[in-house]
Amino acid sequence: MQNAVILINVEKGRIRGVAERLADLEGISEVYSTCGRYDLIAIARTRDFESLASLVTERLMSVEGIRDTETLNAMQVHSRHDLDAMFSVGL
Amino acid sequence: MQNAVILINVEKGRIRGVAERLADLEGISEVYSTCGRYDLIAIARTRDFESLASLVTERLMSVEGIRDTETLNAMQVHSRHDLDAMFSVGL
Amino acid sequence: MQNAVILINVEKGRIRGVAERLADLEGISEVYSTCGRYDLIAIARTRDFESLASLVTERLMSVEGIRDTETLNAMQVHSRHDLDAMFSVGL
Amino acid sequence: MQNAVILINVEKGRIRGVAERLADLEGISEVYSTCGRYDLIAIARTRDFESLASLVTERLMSVEGIRDTETLNAMQVHSRHDLDAMFSVGL
Amino acid sequence: MQNAVILINVEKGRIRGVAERLADLEGISEVYSTCGRYDLIAIARTRDFESLASLVTERLMSVEGIRDTETLNAMQVHSRHDLDAMFSVGL
Amino acid sequence: MQNAVILINVEKGRIRGVAERLADLEGISEVYSTCGRYDLIAIARTRDFESLASLVTERLMSVEGIRDTETLNAMQVHSRHDLDAMFSVGL
Amino acid sequence: MQNAVILINVEKGRIRGVAERLADLEGISEVYSTCGRYDLIAIARTRDFESLASLVTERLMSVEGIRDTETLNAMQVHSRHDLDAMFSVGL
Amino acid sequence: MQNAVILINVEKGRIRGVAERLADLEGISEVYSTCGRYDLIAIARTRDFESLASLVTERLMSVEGIRDTETLNAMQVHSRHDLDAMFSVGL
Amino acid sequence: MQNAVILINVEKGRIRGVAERLADLEGISEVYSTCGRYDLIAIARTRDFESLASLVTERLMSVEGIRDTETLNAMQVHSRHDLDAMFSVGL
Amino acid sequence: MQNAVILINVEKGRIRGVAERLADLEGISEVYSTCGRYDLIAIARTRDFESLASLVTERLMSVEGIRDTETLNAMQVHSRHDLDAMFSVGL
Repeated sequence: MQNAVILINVEKGRIRGVAERLADLEGISEVYSTCGRYDLIAIARTRDFESLASLVTERLMSVEGIRDTETLNAMQVHSRHDLDAMFSVGL
Repeated sequence: MQNAVILINVEKGRIRGVAERLADLEGISEVYSTCGRYDLIAIARTRDFESLASLVTERLMSVEGIRDTETLNAMQVHSRHDLDAMFSVGL
Repeated sequence: MQNAVILINVEKGRIRGVAERLADLEGISEVYSTCGRYDLIAIARTRDFESLASLVTERLMSVEGIRDTETLNAMQVHSRHDLDAMFSVGL
Repeated sequence: MQNAVILINVEKGRIRGVAERLADLEGISEVYSTCGRYDLIAIARTRDFESLASLVTERLMSVEGIRDTETLNAMQVHSRHDLDAMFSVGL
Repeated sequence: MQNAVILINVEKGRIRGVAERLADLEGISEVYSTCGRYDLIAIARTRDFESLASLVTERLMSVEGIRDTETLNAMQVHSRHDLDAMFSVGL
Repeated sequence: MQNAVILINVEKGRIRGVAERLADLEGISEVYSTCGRYDLIAIARTRDFESLASLVTERLMSVEGIRDTETLNAMQVHSRHDLDAMFSVGL
Repeated sequence: MQNAVILINVEKGRIRGVAERLADLEGISEVYSTCGRYDLIAIARTRDFESLASLVTERLMSVEGIRDTETLNAMQVHSRHDLDAMFSVGL
Repeated sequence: MQNAVILINVEKGRIRGVAERLADLEGISEVYSTCGRYDLIAIARTRDFESLASLVTERLMSVEGIRDTETLNAMQVHSRHDLDAMFSVGL
Repeated sequence: MQNAVILINVEKGRIRGVAERLADLEGISEVYSTCGRYDLIAIARTRDFESLASLVTERLMSVEGIRDTETLNAMQVHSRHDLDAMFSVGL
Repeated sequence: MQNAVILINVEKGRIRGVAERLADLEGISEVYSTCGRYDLIAIARTRDFESLASLVTERLMSVEGIRDTETLNAMQVHSRHDLDAMFSVGL
């Protein structure tokens, strides 16, 4: 599984709508509306690197109301949970 | 469950060590070593707000080699997964 | 009580108007027009975390003339005053 | 009453200690440990401008563990609360 | 006397016009067109804090061509000159 | 007369001491301790450009406790006051 | 051979299209869509300095959808590969 | 002779045109299209301070396609060349 | 093949030494000393994602004199060259 | 002739000394102590690209008191002066 953290700022007044649209995208497991310098932070968990690339460079951008994104690929994951098993259900 | 995304930079050459120590902390479910402007991104999932506060203002800082952290509390979570159930095992 | 500090920049020439509108919102206890890098700083004091989230991600943004906001949730409060009692009147 | 919002970053691992020391200072009514780009945000409420100046340029800096502060004076306050009356007790 | 330093950027090609308009405002004693990161720096010297607040949050913004301002209130003044006497003529 | 605005940050806890030392320097007419992103703002008013250069590149730096300075030369001055006459006394 | 690294941000939703157009330009050997603060990073490898200058100041800008570029000329190249030989085929 | 370095960013695709127009302005001796964070860097060499001020606050801005400028006045010049003599021809 | 662009700043006076050491690392195909905001830019071309992760989070940091790195993984590569074939020799 | 603009910040109190040392270096034609965000700006004019690279990556850094440099290579020069002829004397 390939993980990435996506930092997102949205157009004024569209936080909730964009969050809901993003959470419906295949490959996005969670979207947090966060305090601080980013409006939303999405966690991408995709089958492989190619799916991540297509999610980030194409499908993500089809969501209306996004102003700016910055994708931070995970190079390694450290967790006591078996994230692969846990999230495979929804992939 | 209270979630937060924690952006972390570490001292030179200590990425892997800090990541492993953080992943062992109660309340931290995953630690990603990421590309881009942050060295590590940790996801905190705690029982309530008080646990998150104590994790972030005290226990996190006991890990050697951390240079800088910025905690971004989740105000809302959007997900097709039942994150509460999935992560309760490890809490 | 859940507190947050909200850093706000407004459209040119609208400082006073936005400040007055914000101060009328339920959950905002005070709005300061400040010197320095932010135009306004609002203090949110809400019953619980959910009210804060709805204030910040929805109601706040209905005020015309706001250009940019950044919400900084309080994780802990240190005060010799009983803020809960003092502000409960206006909540 | 003269109000100011003070944005504070502290040395690693000293958030709670500095917060408690600041909250004890005359003229500081509340100290929040916040998420996001500042470690602590203190609210100063002083009798007049001179007290604020002495608090910020001298007494504040006697607290060990502070790394950086930025004071944002309130030029105007908008509130449905009578902040002067409420906080005069503790001044 | 209440002093403040106001950092100003203007719309392209309007430095001189904005500077002249600002210098005519009651409460602004001098306007410098400066090298470096700001286009203009104005010095405000007003009778009291209220006059400064109204100058900065309202009258200043009526000048066409201003893009951005940041007001830095003086908390203390150190000078071998009697600035109060010198500038009272023009207040 | 050549004017410049000098933006200054000082070492922790030294705001007042540095301000007093600077105000004593020939060529510095006023020093403000300000709110916001700079600790001190000094106004230099020197006979000519050479005096300003020597003040800024040499004498200023002899004051202990200064951490960082940025000098913004005035290219033009707009004022209803006769600043040359007013400040010539102290030059 | 003259090398340069070109950091590029594009208009929303145009990452792939711009990348393909850039990769077709004579003098651009590779275009990476990257994670982090830039959308695309292109490597320019031109015969000489003049070709690089014309590529960067003119031809590059004819590609629709580019928002911002920053060119970082290579002053020296360190490699165990014979880059001149390898890329001469495609120049 | 009064020197200044002017850092310039231009509208997309207009680097060469703006450079040529600037190089024709009286008082501008050279315009470099540079790599890195600025598009163009111009060197101003004027008879005196007043000419520099009028060049920078008025004539420079008449060139179409400039987006942003920042002028850095030279306070002192160190050179083994007699710049005054060399450039007087073209002034 | 997995590509990444690594932005690097080094300790003062160590540009050439660090560049040579980096160019010797397995997985680094080229190191450019560049103009502008970064001292060095290295191109990593590794067999797979795991090799990239171990290069970036461990081996890179063993080189003395590096101050700061930021790794930008390539998610997609666009090139008329067969980079896989060209660089496989040196992998 | 290869030109570059070098933006330089120096250690506190060393502006003049560093400027004089830099102006003595072969390949540096002028050093300006400037107002604003950089302490010194040097103009490099070297025979060719290799000389510039060795000046910037090695000889420049031998000057004591430099804290930070950023070199901006000129890709094109626009001037009504024959800079090659004028500066060849001193090269």
